[in-house]
Amino acid sequence: MKKMDATVMYKITYGLYIIGARKGDRINAQTANTAVQISADPVTVAVSINKQNLTHEYILSGGYFTVSILDQNAPLSLIGQFGFKSGRDTDKFAEVNYSTTANGLPYITEHSLAYMEAKVIDRLDAGTHTIFLGQVTAAENLKAGEPMTYAYYRQIKKGGTPPAAPTYQGTQKEVKAERAEKADQKMDKYVCKLCGYVYDPEKGDPDNNIAPGTPFADLPDDWVCPVCGVGKDQFEKES
Amino acid sequence: MKKMDATVMYKITYGLYIIGARKGDRINAQTANTAVQISADPVTVAVSINKQNLTHEYILSGGYFTVSILDQNAPLSLIGQFGFKSGRDTDKFAEVNYSTTANGLPYITEHSLAYMEAKVIDRLDAGTHTIFLGQVTAAENLKAGEPMTYAYYRQIKKGGTPPAAPTYQGTQKEVKAERAEKADQKMDKYVCKLCGYVYDPEKGDPDNNIAPGTPFADLPDDWVCPVCGVGKDQFEKES
Repeated sequence: MKKMDATVMYKITYGLYIIGARKGDRINAQTANTAVQISADPVTVAVSINKQNLTHEYILSGGYFTVSILDQNAPLSLIGQFGFKSGRDTDKFAEVNYSTTANGLPYITEHSLAYMEAKVIDRLDAGTHTIFLGQVTAAENLKAGEPMTYAYYRQIKKGGTPPAAPTYQGTQKEVKAERAEKADQKMDKYVCKLCGYVYDPEKGDPDNNIAPGTPFADLPDDWVCPVCGVGKDQFEKES
Repeated sequence: MKKMDATVMYKITYGLYIIGARKGDRINAQTANTAVQISADPVTVAVSINKQNLTHEYILSGGYFTVSILDQNAPLSLIGQFGFKSGRDTDKFAEVNYSTTANGLPYITEHSLAYMEAKVIDRLDAGTHTIFLGQVTAAENLKAGEPMTYAYYRQIKKGGTPPAAPTYQGTQKEVKAERAEKADQKMDKYVCKLCGYVYDPEKGDPDNNIAPGTPFADLPDDWVCPVCGVGKDQFEKES
């Protein structure tokens, strides 16, 4: 009998990064959890990018990418801005503080501990994704702090995973398991149908000035999902 | 002016894994911090292995690898056994609990939360290292717990990095910085010259029954570095 438990994959440890790219005079960036150092001499780094993403097209065309290393305190709105929207129909940088490298690649300067820029020296076709191997051409620390880990993002920040991510599993199993533990009839949790973000009234949404203890029904009408930006009507009560 | 600060690389988040392989009737395994899921359909995982390592030879030859995901409580001795010794001159499995997959690949059953087995479907030459892309052929959870992260290993467990690792930087900068913070004349710390492990008398070496408060001089003569296994004579007082 073959043993195959997909939940094993949840135990791999990741950080959380914004991967930037440039094609001609256009820039784009996306959230990713996969960036790893591969060698020390020369210093190389690998990232894994879904072929459907605009950032993939820009890296292929431009031959460079940046990795901004997110601070643990980065708000869900920033992660969602780069993770759940496409640069094809949104200017992802409109309300974000960023700067550019000497080669014109964008990197995030808010809630980012450090960034690096890398020149693509090889790539590996991995089906839905491409692994880009880059030689690091610039690297700079921006501020002190703890890096955001993917586990922290999922468990503490209650963030979701977009369908194009390697770790997307169709259902938000971990979130559901956690919900089952703590049932509270009077303070129902609501789930974003698009991204899986869970609004928990006990915690509120401090990033957006919603105090802990605020029931879903009492959220302002213009409140939106802090991860993917859809309105309240896209939420459903947890079942 | 080009900005290049190598300490940026320290902010990338990793887990800690034992990568197993088989060549003919021989098995080997090594510690690694780089294992990442690449795609969800099919489920693929990538690992980065130094070409000098015996495990590299076995993966190339055997075409399969395993990833054992270490528990946060895994002792330094286990990590060191697989990280600082070579299967060329040591039977790494001699005193370790392990089992084998249907294909005969070894995985660790002590201090391991889960393991997976993968069949190599492609690889990328990355200079000193090879990135192996594997399709997951088996995956099983072994016990509940928190995964060991590389940051926890370095900061809490005080573990070192072998020269063949991508994250090796020649000097143990983080460890030195931490040492500078807390100087205690009467309880000098001692550093392993081989792997950088720091013996801190305040903490002792509980994994090996050395109580907190035991000065280095009072360690038994047969005490060895819990990470790489060398004797007391390979230690020097921190400067």
